[in-house]
Amino acid sequence: MAEKHDAVEVIAAKRDGGELSDSQVDWVIDAYTRGHVADEQMAALAMAILLNGMTRREVERWTAAMIASGERMDFSTLSRPTADKHSTGGVGDKITLPLAPLVASCGVAVPQLSGRGLGHTGGTLDKLESIPGWQASLSNDEMMRQLEDVGAVVCAAGSGLAPADKKLYALRDVTGTVESIPLIASSIMSKKIAEGTGALVLDVKVGSGAFMKELGHARELAETMVAIGEDAGLRTVALLTDMATPLGRTAGNALEVRESVAVLEGGGPDDVVELTVALAREMLSGAGREDVDPADKLADGSAMDVWRRMVEAQGGDPDGELPTAKHTEVVNARATGVVTRLDAMAVGLAAWRLGAGRANQGEPVQPGAGVEIHVRPGEQATEGEPLLTLHTDDPERFERAKASLDGGIDIEPRPATGEDPHHPTPLVLDRIG
Amino acid sequence: MAEKHDAVEVIAAKRDGGELSDSQVDWVIDAYTRGHVADEQMAALAMAILLNGMTRREVERWTAAMIASGERMDFSTLSRPTADKHSTGGVGDKITLPLAPLVASCGVAVPQLSGRGLGHTGGTLDKLESIPGWQASLSNDEMMRQLEDVGAVVCAAGSGLAPADKKLYALRDVTGTVESIPLIASSIMSKKIAEGTGALVLDVKVGSGAFMKELGHARELAETMVAIGEDAGLRTVALLTDMATPLGRTAGNALEVRESVAVLEGGGPDDVVELTVALAREMLSGAGREDVDPADKLADGSAMDVWRRMVEAQGGDPDGELPTAKHTEVVNARATGVVTRLDAMAVGLAAWRLGAGRANQGEPVQPGAGVEIHVRPGEQATEGEPLLTLHTDDPERFERAKASLDGGIDIEPRPATGEDPHHPTPLVLDRIG
Repeated sequence: MAEKHDAVEVIAAKRDGGELSDSQVDWVIDAYTRGHVADEQMAALAMAILLNGMTRREVERWTAAMIASGERMDFSTLSRPTADKHSTGGVGDKITLPLAPLVASCGVAVPQLSGRGLGHTGGTLDKLESIPGWQASLSNDEMMRQLEDVGAVVCAAGSGLAPADKKLYALRDVTGTVESIPLIASSIMSKKIAEGTGALVLDVKVGSGAFMKELGHARELAETMVAIGEDAGLRTVALLTDMATPLGRTAGNALEVRESVAVLEGGGPDDVVELTVALAREMLSGAGREDVDPADKLADGSAMDVWRRMVEAQGGDPDGELPTAKHTEVVNARATGVVTRLDAMAVGLAAWRLGAGRANQGEPVQPGAGVEIHVRPGEQATEGEPLLTLHTDDPERFERAKASLDGGIDIEPRPATGEDPHHPTPLVLDRIG
Repeated sequence: MAEKHDAVEVIAAKRDGGELSDSQVDWVIDAYTRGHVADEQMAALAMAILLNGMTRREVERWTAAMIASGERMDFSTLSRPTADKHSTGGVGDKITLPLAPLVASCGVAVPQLSGRGLGHTGGTLDKLESIPGWQASLSNDEMMRQLEDVGAVVCAAGSGLAPADKKLYALRDVTGTVESIPLIASSIMSKKIAEGTGALVLDVKVGSGAFMKELGHARELAETMVAIGEDAGLRTVALLTDMATPLGRTAGNALEVRESVAVLEGGGPDDVVELTVALAREMLSGAGREDVDPADKLADGSAMDVWRRMVEAQGGDPDGELPTAKHTEVVNARATGVVTRLDAMAVGLAAWRLGAGRANQGEPVQPGAGVEIHVRPGEQATEGEPLLTLHTDDPERFERAKASLDGGIDIEPRPATGEDPHHPTPLVLDRIG
């Protein structure tokens, strides 16, 4: 660093509502990564950022400094273009599983570095790990080879990408400074830009099951991330998508793999298919391949072929038997009528409490645990007939899981006029970029 | 603690603009003192408090929780009432030295726990330590005995009082969270209330040489501290006093002791005498002794007698030769006229750079270093004649000391009309309580 700063000076500048200079941002991120700025100093700065915000220029520089703290991957030697997708996390969000092979089957490579789940939203790696033999860890060389041979990789992010973000994310988690749009946006984008993808599509979830409950906040996050991508020269588009109710009919690791395979076989729930195809179109467009229709590749089995090769390349058996939970319990409808609301957060918490998710990093998850949805919003329920099935290896978990569903399901009798009391929101709410 | 909380929950409540409950405040202070809440969590909370503020109820509880983190002294067994004074710090502020023995000579005991200086304002203990043999550390028993026998003690605060404040103060110093009125007020008041004084007078400084540059901020700090004192059942009064120019004619440790002795001998600068007597009257009033006039006790030598006994009781020789600096340099007036401004911060920085203060805790100070003021605001300067004398043991310090005086001194020719171009502000600007 050419210019030297002081932690208190940088904190005070942001505390007093000022804009940090490029040199201040570069210095504080570098010094924090090296341990010269202490955790308590970065925590005070993060709170000042959360409360006083950041300008577009500051966020762009903050992101660049986090990228510069580590290695940067480069896929320019691949024989095809690359595109990646990032979701801000939702209940039943298994979209990466059908999407990565689908886009690869259209001639665009997908280098997806994923994470594990924490809390009520599942992690893509946890889902894939329910496939017998599948391994999340790949070296950079293995990843490159698989991208060239198969076209799609979903694997664990190495520790070399944006180490500043890794350290800062852990700090924000314990200091009440997660909920800052500039910090969320720069955290996501630093990893995605360092990953070296050629185009990026963001799936920003809105609703009870998402981190962003309100459309305005989600839009602000999406706009911030798209701006960071643009400033870094990365083609970036964001879709704002509904997360008031779970995606598809399953929430849980092996349950969601099964549903994803159904989509790749040409079936599966309509909403999962719709979002998979919509995101695939955006990724193809970003990679300059608008000429290919992903719906065709789902229909003709090409996407399924790539899925099988992608699973096999990471040691998994695509025909292996997926784990099932030892115990199930059915939740029946309490009334007859149309399901007008099935709350995503309620289902997410139930799946988490059944063992599909973890409370603390590093804990194991139950591959078979989760929630199966028999009647989705807009569909007809009958009193005493199954609405959901809960899956777990520990039957004592059923009570707390059912408690989290309390108040999360509304059933309304169809009125005499025959009018449908369920007014579904569209799945894709808006597009930014 | 009856109720359990979680650091992120408490941080988030303040971050989101809420009022912390008594139980949250008690828990977070106790858990921080015990190390169960980490420094980075308290730093985030301190920044949220700085930016979002605290209600009167919260500050009162926060102070009480810091007091409860340690021991509390009790002077109720003394044969006379007690009163103490706290100054928020200024340049040339030696008032404690004549004030403590003066109040004691009026029949009210003064248990003053003091600190060392950091930055441009000197510390009372540093000043007294320039007296040969004088010791700052006393046990609680020694302090009690001296209060009964002599009536005045100025000594170092033990580590047992408000340890939560000690830990939090050190954290705020490195995290840009010093400048919060609720945190400053609770820090000062927790120590003063734990100290067990029966009445408290606050000298809140305003102006360039003070921590509070603006009257409005100083008033808010004074009102917050008086409210905390009232809520804790401690008779508390605050004077807002001017710190645009140094107090008296000296800034530096031994230099200020000499000036204080001159005041006790019935001489000394008018402003030092005025403020000493004003604060003494408030302390006597708080202790129920309005009947005694402190001006009489200065005039008749009673205060001087107590000073000598107070110094001797802590091992000091009141007749010992005070240290002088090895080198002096005179700063002459550049023009003839009335000094209309002698900036307190400029003089404070000059004294600090000459060696009277320290940059880091634990560093030694030069007892003889400092600034002597020959011409104060309102007095006549003559071009080429002495304005200030700088004192230091290291002659290479003169240059930087003189640089800090640049722009800090204004001299205006007396206009033809004979009108005085210097309009002095009153020393005591307001009284709160």
